[in-house]
Formats: sequence, structure tokens, C-alpha cells
Amino acid sequence: MKIWYVGAYGIVSTTAMLGGKLIEKGRMETTGLVSELPQFEGIEKYAPLKFEFGGHEVRKVENAYVASLQHWELNRHFELDQLEEVREDLEKIRAEKGTAINCGKGVQALGELDVLENEVQTLSEIVERLERDVKRFADSETVMINSASTEPIIRYNEKYHDTLDGFEKMIEENAKEYASASMLYAYVALKNGIPYGNFTPSVGSSLPALKELAIEKKVPHAGNDGKTGETLVKTTLAPMFAYRNLKVLGWMSYNILGDLDGLVLSHKENKESKVISKDKVLEKIYGYSPFSITQIEYFPSLADNKTAFDFIHFEGFLGRKMKFYFIWDAIDAIVAAPLTIDIARFLLFAKKEGMYGVIKEMGFFFKSPMETRNVNTHSQFEELVRWYQENA
Amino acid sequence: MKIWYVGAYGIVSTTAMLGGKLIEKGRMETTGLVSELPQFEGIEKYAPLKFEFGGHEVRKVENAYVASLQHWELNRHFELDQLEEVREDLEKIRAEKGTAINCGKGVQALGELDVLENEVQTLSEIVERLERDVKRFADSETVMINSASTEPIIRYNEKYHDTLDGFEKMIEENAKEYASASMLYAYVALKNGIPYGNFTPSVGSSLPALKELAIEKKVPHAGNDGKTGETLVKTTLAPMFAYRNLKVLGWMSYNILGDLDGLVLSHKENKESKVISKDKVLEKIYGYSPFSITQIEYFPSLADNKTAFDFIHFEGFLGRKMKFYFIWDAIDAIVAAPLTIDIARFLLFAKKEGMYGVIKEMGFFFKSPMETRNVNTHSQFEELVRWYQENA
Amino acid sequence: MKIWYVGAYGIVSTTAMLGGKLIEKGRMETTGLVSELPQFEGIEKYAPLKFEFGGHEVRKVENAYVASLQHWELNRHFELDQLEEVREDLEKIRAEKGTAINCGKGVQALGELDVLENEVQTLSEIVERLERDVKRFADSETVMINSASTEPIIRYNEKYHDTLDGFEKMIEENAKEYASASMLYAYVALKNGIPYGNFTPSVGSSLPALKELAIEKKVPHAGNDGKTGETLVKTTLAPMFAYRNLKVLGWMSYNILGDLDGLVLSHKENKESKVISKDKVLEKIYGYSPFSITQIEYFPSLADNKTAFDFIHFEGFLGRKMKFYFIWDAIDAIVAAPLTIDIARFLLFAKKEGMYGVIKEMGFFFKSPMETRNVNTHSQFEELVRWYQENA
Amino acid sequence: MKIWYVGAYGIVSTTAMLGGKLIEKGRMETTGLVSELPQFEGIEKYAPLKFEFGGHEVRKVENAYVASLQHWELNRHFELDQLEEVREDLEKIRAEKGTAINCGKGVQALGELDVLENEVQTLSEIVERLERDVKRFADSETVMINSASTEPIIRYNEKYHDTLDGFEKMIEENAKEYASASMLYAYVALKNGIPYGNFTPSVGSSLPALKELAIEKKVPHAGNDGKTGETLVKTTLAPMFAYRNLKVLGWMSYNILGDLDGLVLSHKENKESKVISKDKVLEKIYGYSPFSITQIEYFPSLADNKTAFDFIHFEGFLGRKMKFYFIWDAIDAIVAAPLTIDIARFLLFAKKEGMYGVIKEMGFFFKSPMETRNVNTHSQFEELVRWYQENA
Repeated sequence: MKIWYVGAYGIVSTTAMLGGKLIEKGRMETTGLVSELPQFEGIEKYAPLKFEFGGHEVRKVENAYVASLQHWELNRHFELDQLEEVREDLEKIRAEKGTAINCGKGVQALGELDVLENEVQTLSEIVERLERDVKRFADSETVMINSASTEPIIRYNEKYHDTLDGFEKMIEENAKEYASASMLYAYVALKNGIPYGNFTPSVGSSLPALKELAIEKKVPHAGNDGKTGETLVKTTLAPMFAYRNLKVLGWMSYNILGDLDGLVLSHKENKESKVISKDKVLEKIYGYSPFSITQIEYFPSLADNKTAFDFIHFEGFLGRKMKFYFIWDAIDAIVAAPLTIDIARFLLFAKKEGMYGVIKEMGFFFKSPMETRNVNTHSQFEELVRWYQENA
Repeated sequence: MKIWYVGAYGIVSTTAMLGGKLIEKGRMETTGLVSELPQFEGIEKYAPLKFEFGGHEVRKVENAYVASLQHWELNRHFELDQLEEVREDLEKIRAEKGTAINCGKGVQALGELDVLENEVQTLSEIVERLERDVKRFADSETVMINSASTEPIIRYNEKYHDTLDGFEKMIEENAKEYASASMLYAYVALKNGIPYGNFTPSVGSSLPALKELAIEKKVPHAGNDGKTGETLVKTTLAPMFAYRNLKVLGWMSYNILGDLDGLVLSHKENKESKVISKDKVLEKIYGYSPFSITQIEYFPSLADNKTAFDFIHFEGFLGRKMKFYFIWDAIDAIVAAPLTIDIARFLLFAKKEGMYGVIKEMGFFFKSPMETRNVNTHSQFEELVRWYQENA
Repeated sequence: MKIWYVGAYGIVSTTAMLGGKLIEKGRMETTGLVSELPQFEGIEKYAPLKFEFGGHEVRKVENAYVASLQHWELNRHFELDQLEEVREDLEKIRAEKGTAINCGKGVQALGELDVLENEVQTLSEIVERLERDVKRFADSETVMINSASTEPIIRYNEKYHDTLDGFEKMIEENAKEYASASMLYAYVALKNGIPYGNFTPSVGSSLPALKELAIEKKVPHAGNDGKTGETLVKTTLAPMFAYRNLKVLGWMSYNILGDLDGLVLSHKENKESKVISKDKVLEKIYGYSPFSITQIEYFPSLADNKTAFDFIHFEGFLGRKMKFYFIWDAIDAIVAAPLTIDIARFLLFAKKEGMYGVIKEMGFFFKSPMETRNVNTHSQFEELVRWYQENA
Repeated sequence: MKIWYVGAYGIVSTTAMLGGKLIEKGRMETTGLVSELPQFEGIEKYAPLKFEFGGHEVRKVENAYVASLQHWELNRHFELDQLEEVREDLEKIRAEKGTAINCGKGVQALGELDVLENEVQTLSEIVERLERDVKRFADSETVMINSASTEPIIRYNEKYHDTLDGFEKMIEENAKEYASASMLYAYVALKNGIPYGNFTPSVGSSLPALKELAIEKKVPHAGNDGKTGETLVKTTLAPMFAYRNLKVLGWMSYNILGDLDGLVLSHKENKESKVISKDKVLEKIYGYSPFSITQIEYFPSLADNKTAFDFIHFEGFLGRKMKFYFIWDAIDAIVAAPLTIDIARFLLFAKKEGMYGVIKEMGFFFKSPMETRNVNTHSQFEELVRWYQENA
């Protein structure tokens, strides 16, 4: 199968490429890949573990091997000999120049960007270029995954975002202030029949206009925001307090991380969209909104070793207050990368079985799953299994 | 409804009595009571929140009010004015003299015991006395709950434990070394048609002989070992690693507590049965047995403020090791007490709907649920809800 | 001895009053009182454990007993029977109406304030009233302690703050925007020969003008900002990394608390002065400035149960990164209250031994000790002991 | 300078060799080396950072390079390119065959041992062989460091252990059951004028007989048991509670680790000597013995990533209980290795300045420092600095 990454040289994408190629060559176990659980037997018929990777990127780097090496320098998230084993495969992966339109000051902090906006003027020219790149790569086995840095929240505009007609008018009229990179990529994917998975909190395919497009083109899509670290634990653990009729008085979630992702998030406007996608989770689980803190801060020496500190204050029988603490100490890309492969595989499965529109049964993979209120990790997993088994 | 507690003056039983009476009088919210969740609407028709309490006890204390006050001295687990509101009710609760036969050196450390063994000689005399006390109290709305201190593991004996005939022979022959207190209480309950819930890891009704009795007498029973603290979290969280295909390399569970329960457990033979009931949980969830440590130690100043330290070492994509830590800081009796009421209510529900034998759908409440391999808290809760709703 | 608290009905002051009176009556151990360590033998001759309390306050409450009870409702930081034992003593403590001039929006959030500004117009009138109250109470055995809520940082003004003349001109000219409550109180104390201890990060006596006054009047004073929780641990632990030549890559300090103090701090301008007083500590210990986060957030259900989460990332031999975490779970007033009594005692000792100006050997008690770079808890303790023993 | 390691292929020794050589070549910073702090300016004149390494070993491995690589496989405690830079130097380091006499079953679990006991029969033959090896290597710049696995506690015997005469009689009489490897090595070092540092809890040079020998031969020695992880933090932090007159109700120290060291300790008899050396610390700091738990357990997947969980329960003003938790997550060899170099340097300094016998001012480096009650990390550091500066 083929995966087109938006943000192809990011740590998540390159880690997925490295792992994907190692698995393909039988040099690594499939630990971390949900789709390889016994519950999903048969998925290899829809989406075999043989990969071709491509993508768009806004940083100037030679190829995916060099990008991997740069991430390794900071993170030591794999062994160098693992990288050397697939060096040639990764050297062949050269991303196309992408767009960072309205991606905020955070993204600009990544350094000098190498973007289409520097070459062409209008939204339609940008879209045209993105489309040209994607079409050259894609076939019927291709999925697009957005794993680029988080965009700021774009101002919602009914005229341009509500309908597909409006969206295309926005492109024609070059109404740049209403367009962001992630929606343009999603538009290109869906328009060309390519399933689209949004691993980020950016808007992606979640606009009504693009949902309409997915239905019209009969393409499956899923998102938003990969559920990797603290939120994964939170949505697994929070139901326990509900099941036992314990009242949550407050929930503190404090996250620190230090790599490019942290740098981008440390910019206020980019952070905002990250914080918001986390806040609704507890309310959905409890039916009430306990006091909560959700913060993400930059801590450079950790690089991608995202660390979360959670404190839950809860009340039990006789009104007594009690406490629970947890610390999550993981490497974000290591948790995230296999999920992008899982999402691609399940989207391909969905497409081949004739499903389209938002695949809400894939909520298991996302912090803010589209078109569902189910955020309980356990129920989501059961839903995913049931969905797969009923349709496979 | 009526609840007969084995270990009536223990901190769990007295906390349940205090809370039960406060709820009955409308002076307290039902926080902590699972059976009061909206999913169990209608349960009050089977088991209304009006309580009469009794029980057996082996420590010499005047009444449940005095026992509560003693526990409060060490634990401050409620406000004194809460106790004063139901003082008269609790003063009326006077436990009968029980048995501590083969309860180990730990239990003897509680101080001088006031037990039937001091008065009568044989197993049949002990059983007779227990039966007399229970029959005086019980009606058709009565449930027996074992919340006494943990017994040592008794040597299994096919002749006496395998069949009801054998068990009754053991009593007749006065084969004391094969009998333990918890099985005698369970025998008395089931023989007299009283549903029995075993909140401890002691053997209780889990002998084949007593399961046979429950079927013969058409009485429901459930156990073993209330899932209150660290195991509750463990069985909620452990499935997350499985869902994500993350390999658990090791799981450390270290528990400290300081009250009578801790004192009893600090005696090797009593501790053994506690440790064993915890060990199987991870294997049931993962299908493999990760390296694990499960320890319980005495830490006097904590009293009943049982604190658990867990560390999970796990492996993800590309073979990377990652870490998760949690600390559970709760008052054990506060978490446990409402569950004993829940168990009593659901057992009464089961009985009134004609169910009998082991109610395995009640596994949600137990660390070592009988006759089921399901230890996943989420699935257990779903099973409990489904079972209730299908039968109510 | 007599202690005049600025912020007399606050939780720190009332806890000190309660404990002070219990100790005086021999009803409580002196746990928490530094001055009662064997190293300070003989201090009772300078400052016996017999107390008279008074103070200024800006909230309308009947007396210190009622104020204590209000704090208890939220915090349960003592047993009610402890309060009842000294009820009469505390009922007699009635604070005088104080000033909250330039104390920021945070302080206004405490509710409707009952302040001198509502009655009189000018700075000199305010000072006159403060002085009248203090003089009525004070004798040669009296110390003033500022334990009021944190003020915002006031704009420094050379003309008014640099010299005593300037300061008194500010009062005469009624230059209100340059005056804050804490400096007016400090002025009144020092002018009247009353030793002054500033337990808060507010400016207090740290203006050059007031240091001049202390010298002129030969009065000892000390501050700023009681070192109670997370900073106490930090300044104890941070030297360890230095001693072992381990490089600190980053230090995260995240504090949550929920009472009036938390409410005041959650207001940006008041928080700023708290955050700044913490930042300099690591630099003083290491000589370099490791990356650091110091945050304080409001978490209502905790009330005064201030909880701190710290994470230290450090580098050792061969460049390896390692980790240290700590959680501080204490009741702020319980840690703070005895220190205010200690400070008062040591200031009285200093005065009686003829010392005046900033007593920099008392740095042990403060987060931002005046006129010293020593912030290492251990060295500070040694310095305190040496100073006492050499002068006693 | 030259360092002779007992346990030359262990992870601590090989990490020290690797780091020492990298520093010598200017390829690494001196982070982690206490002796390189500005307080110890001038030490390079006594003990320059140029190294020759040798040692005894009981496992059959080709050379220190191969041993390093084996440890790296399990621990990834350095980068492979660091090792490659000094590969040749480490390949030249070939340990001599040592003794493991009375080192317990734990040490036997390391695999088939290659020890002198297999070749020669008597204690005097063993000592002769050890002496021959050491004398071939040693010059006036040589120090011996014991960093071998922990031995079980040997039964103390007045006849053989009290005096040098007795000790030599033990050797002559071949009284094997009273001799352990560590005392034989120490004997050889001291007898030959070689300063000896005991980085382990084994008996080493702490017998009266060997102290006598050190005085007679005018050789400095120091020990026991390198203070690396949890005890380092404990002895830094514990004084804080004393300074503030806070009463420690209980202190839990729970350590897990997984490498050879862990394997050895998991054997009961070897563990015993480790646990005992930790217990006395709190008593020395507080003057009273708070309830305490000190446990070390084997946790294989952690390898040398020794992790400690501490919980301190303490009482403050008004009798309130409060809590403190910490987690230490470090690589033991990384913390330990530079200290063995420090100890060697300071012992050489001592020797060159004419000091001999137990150097009790070096207690900073040890969990159970000989001939001093000072276990407070702060005071120990001050003592070390003062000692060095007064004698340099």
C-alpha cells in the first residue's frame, strides 16, 4: 500500500516510514500496530504490510533518511543500525514542496520554510500543484495522512466552509484568509478519491464542505488528532470513576515536550487548537464538566520524550476526598507512528468494502473523533473490532 | 433490606453501616454506590435504601457506634457530626460472637479474641451457634457479606471440600484442620437460603461443596475479594496496552497500608492469600504473563489510607521501552464500604429474579471473580449493566 | 510575646494563633516550630511561648475564632476540638480595619473589602490610622508579621522609594500610585521600633527607604516570602546535583492550590510577583540558569492543600540524561504558621541582642532572602544556628 | 594514575574505563566527576586525568571492550561511537582471574565462574596469586577500587578478624569459612601500600584487622558502599524535615533494578548486606528511628536503570499528617562510575599528603561511611571541601 504523508519529514512520518520498511523486510516485530492484533485477522488482504511512501513537506531536507537522522540526533528514538538497514529505501523518499498557508507563527519558527507560497500566488495555483504531486504518486491503494504540525484555529466562515460550492468559491476567489494548509490537502485527497486521515488537531477534512465532498466522491475519511499519550490514558481511566459513581472534583493534565512539535505549540495561537481538542473529553465521559486544567509547555531537553503529569481529585462515599496521580513517560513518535499506518490500513479496508464519509468507528485512534460522542477508549476499541469483523 | 456482616465491627462494615443509615435518612449523597447509577434504575424496588444491619464479630466491642469511633480515631475517614447523626441507630447494632477458626496468627494479632471456639468444642456446635444467630436476624430480604480479615489459604482436601456430602462429613467428624471460618459462615448462609457475597480473598463459598449447596438451595452467591484500590486501576488500565499492541515488559504493584487489615496481612501466612489473588489478573488480560511484582506491606501511620505505587514498563514500535507510573492515595474503607451494599443489593435482585449459583456477571466488584476469566473493568461494567437490564 | 499580623484573619495567621495558644496551654507538641529545636536552647528567655495576638485585616469577620472556623470548613486543617479548647482566646482577637491599597484585582476577588480607603482619603490619614492601632497594641515584646495576600509588583520609583525622605514625601504628597499596603505597614512598624517580618513576596520592608528607616531606628527586620513548600524542597535538593557535578537540563515546578491564596494568585498581576520570587533560586545555586518552568494555578477542590509537581531532567557521565520527580502534598498553612512564630521569636531575639537592619542570617525562612545570595536550605540552617549560638 | 578494579568487567568499572579514556582524550566533558568541581582546583597535580586500568574479574570475557559491549546490549548506557573512539584502549585491558570465595549463591548465578579457587587450594595460594597480579601492575600512583558484586555478610570472628595477626593466621590456617573475597583483595592492596576504596557494601577493609594493617603500612583507605541513587537523595532530603522540626512518621524506600547487580541482590543472602547498610541512615539523621521500609527487588527489563520509589509520611504543626513522594529514574553505572574515579583521585591525594588509615572526610561518597556518624550529604560535601582545601 501507499501512504502520502503531509509533513513527510516530521518525526512521526519518518518513524512510520522507518518502522514500515523494517516490518516489510521482516526485521522488526509489529509491536505498536493495532491492526496486527488477532482481532483484525485478514486485514493484510486489504492492506498488506508492504509500503511505498511519499508526501509533502515545508522544511528543506534532502530525503527521509536525512530527516530521520536529524530526528535521531535529538531523540535517540531508534538504534542507528535499524536506520542503516533501510537506508536506501528512505533515501529514495523525497517529499514534494508543500504549503504552510495560515499555519501560524509557530510553524515559521521551524526555520526558513520552503513552501509553494514562495513560488505561486493564488489558492488555485497552490491546489493545482498539490494535486499534481499527489496524482503522480497515488493509485487505488493510496491513503493520505496529515501528520504535519498543528495549525492555529482558522476563523469559521459559513460562506466558504459550509458547502463544497462555497469551498471551491473560496479557492477561485483566492480568499486566502479563510484557507489553511490542512484543508487544502484534505480537499486534494478527497477530490481524487484518496482516503484521508487527519492525525492532527488542525481542521483537515472536518469542514462541512469537505464532508460533503467525501460523500460525493464516495471516499472514507477519519480524524482528528491522534490519541497518543496523556489523552489515551485519560480516556481509559476516566470511565473507571464513572463506573464506581465517584465524583471527579478536578483533573489536572500537564504536558511537557521539547521538539519541533513543542516549539510550534509554545506559540500561543498554535497551542490554542491543541488545548481545545482535549477539554471536551471529560465532559463527554461524565456528563458533567469537572474542573480541569490541560496545559502543554515547551521543555527543550525532553525533545520528543513527551511527559505528562496528571492529578485527579475525587470524592467518594461519605464525601471523602481522595487522590490519584499518574506520570506518562513515552516517546511521542514511537506511540504515534504505528497508528498512522493503522489508520491508513483501516481507511483502505473501508474504501474496499464500499464505505465512505466519516468512518466514525475509527474514533479509537483520535482525541476528537468526528461525528461521535464516544471517547471511552474501551468502547472505541470494541466498536472498531465489531465494525471490522462485521465488514471483513 | 437487611445485611449481615461477617466482621461486623471492621472498618468496612461500620463505614457501610454509617453511610447506609445516613443515606436512608437523606443526609448524604449516594456517591460511591454503583447501584445508584442511572443504568440501574429500578433497583430500589428490589432492594430499597433502607437498612437493618447485624453480623458476627470476633473482637469484643460494645456496639457499632463504639467500633466506628475506634476506627475514626485512627483514620478520620468521616466527620464526627456524620456519626452523631446516626449514633442511636449504630448503638443498636450489636454483633454476635463469631468464629476465627484457622484464621491464622495475623488475626490473633488483633488482640484477645472473643470467639465461639472458647465456648464450644466441635465444628457442629460452632455451626449450630452461627446458624442460630443468623436465623434470628434473617428474613427473605437478607444478604450475608463477608468483610472479615483475610484468612490464610487452607489446604484443599478433596474428601471434605469437593462435595456437599463431604463438607457435612467434615463438620460431623469435627475435622477442624480442614475448616476455616469463612467457609462455615458461607455454609450457614447458603443452607438457609441467604445470598452470600464474599468481599475477601478468603475461601468463602468458592469450594465445590458450597457451590453445590448454592445450586441445591437455589441461592445466588458472588465473590471473591472486593476490587477496591490498585487492582481496580490495574484492570482498568492494563487493557489499554493490549488494545494498542504495546508489550508489557514488567508491572510493579507495591501497596502499603497501616490499619488492622495491614497488621493481619503483615503476617506471612495471611499475606500469601492476598498476593495470590492479585497475580492472575495480568495474565488473564494479556494472554501472556509479564514479569510482575505484587507486594503489600504494613506502614502504620497510614492506617486505612491505603497507598499503591505502580510502575509499568512497556515496549512499543521499533522496540523502544517506555514508562508509566501511578499512585493511588485513597481510604480503603471509603472505596470498599459502598460496594458491600451494592453487592448485597444485586444479590437480592438476583434472588428475586430467580437466579442462583455463582452470579458471574457481578465480577465487576471482585479481584478474583468466580467462574469467569473476564477481569477487564470496562467489560465487567458492561456485563453488569447488560445483565441487570435484561433481567430487571 | 505579642505578634501583630497583617492579614490577621487569613489562614496562616489564624492557624498560628490557634497553635500558639494550644502550645501556651501545653495542649500541643511544638512540632513544626524551628525555634524549639535543641540548637536554639534558651530562646524562651527572649521570646517565651506565651502569646498575645492582634492585627489588621481587610475582610469583615467577627473575630479570629470565626475566621478559623471559616477556614476549617474548606480545609479541615485541624480537629474541631483543638479549636474549641482555645475558643475564648480566639474570640477575643479582633482585628483592626486595614488597607488594601494597590493590592490588585486578586485581592478584590476576596469579596467586598472593609478597608480604611473607604473612610479616609489620603496616605497620611491611612498611615495615621494604622499607626494608632499598632501603638495601642504594641509593647517592647511585639513583632509585626505580614502574612496578607500577595500584592502585585508596584512600579519602582526612585524619587519615592530610594530614601526615607522620599518615602515620607510620597505620603505627604499623597502619591497613591506608588504606595502599596505592605510598605505602609512596614513603615509603621519600623518607625515605631517594632521588628518586622515579611512572610509574603510583597515589597514590605525591602525598599531602600525602609531599610534606611530600620537602620535609623535600630530595628531588625527580615523577609521576603516564607519558604514553605515546593521551594523548600527545591533549595534542599538542588545543591545535590551541584555537589555531584550533574548538569541540570531543566527543572519543572508546577504548583496547584485552591483557597483564597490560590484565588488571588490566579489573577495575573498578583501571580507575577509570586512567580518572579521563585525563578532566581536555581541560578543562585548553580551559577548558571537551567531551563525552568515555575507555575502556580488555581485548583479549587484542594483548598489550602497546596500540591507541587516537580520534574528534574539532568545529565551525568558520558552525557546520559536521567530523571527525578517529586510530589509535595502538604497543607500550606500548617507548614507556614509555625514559621511566622519562629520569625517573630528570632526577630525579638535580634532586637534584644542589639541587632538591627536586615537580619540576613534569617534567610532560612524565606524564598527571597534579603541581602544574601545564600538560598541553600542546608547552609541557611547552619548559618541560623551559628548566628543564634554566637549571639545568645 | 592507575586504577585496579576488583570486578573489572562489571558495568561500573567498564563505564569508568570508557569515560576515563574519553576524558583523557578530550572527547567528553567531566560532568559527573566531583573532583573536577572548582572547589577541588589543583587535584590534577596529585591525580591527573590520564588513566591506566587493570583489575581482577571472575567472569570469562576477552577484554574490557567486549565487556562494555555486553553491558551496552542490555543497557544502552552510552552511544556506540563513544565506545569505538576508545576501542583500542579498552581491548588492551585484560583482567586477571580473581576469587569469589564466599561470595554467595547470587554471584554464582552470574554463570560459570572462572576463579582462582578452581586452580589453587588454600587461602595463602589465592592471596599469593592476587598479590602477584597486583604487583605486576601497580606503581606509586595506583589505587584499588572494589566494585564487584555484593557479598553476603560473613560471620564475624574475633580470633581471625580482630587483629592483623589473627587475620594472617586465618590465611595460614586456611580457615576458609571466615574469609571472603573482598577482605582478601583489601589485604593485598593495603599490604602493598596501595590505597583502597570499597565501593560496595561487602566487608572490604572495614575489619579491625585490616584497619590495623592500613595504619601499620601508612596507607589511606575509604568506604563502604557507593552512595549513588536513592540513598543519595534520602540523605540530602531527610535533614530538611529535621531542620523544620517536622516529625517523620514513616519512610518507604522501594528500589527496583534488573541487571547482574539485581540478579545477585535477588538472592536472599546477598540482599541482606545491602538492606542493612541502608537502614541506619535515618536514625543517624533524626536521632530517632522512624518506621521505615527499605527494599530492593529484581525487575529484569530495567537492567541497570535503577528506579527508586520513596514515600515520606510526616507530621507538622497541629499534628497534621502530610506526604512527600519521589521517583529516582537513573542509570546506576552512570552515577556510580565517575565516583570510583573520584575516590581513587582523593585517595591518591591523601596518600601524597601523608594521610593514612580511614579517610573519614570522604564519607560523601559512601552509604555507610566508616568511622563517622555524618551521613548528611550537605555536611559531607562541606567536610570534603574543607579537608581538601586545608591539605592541598
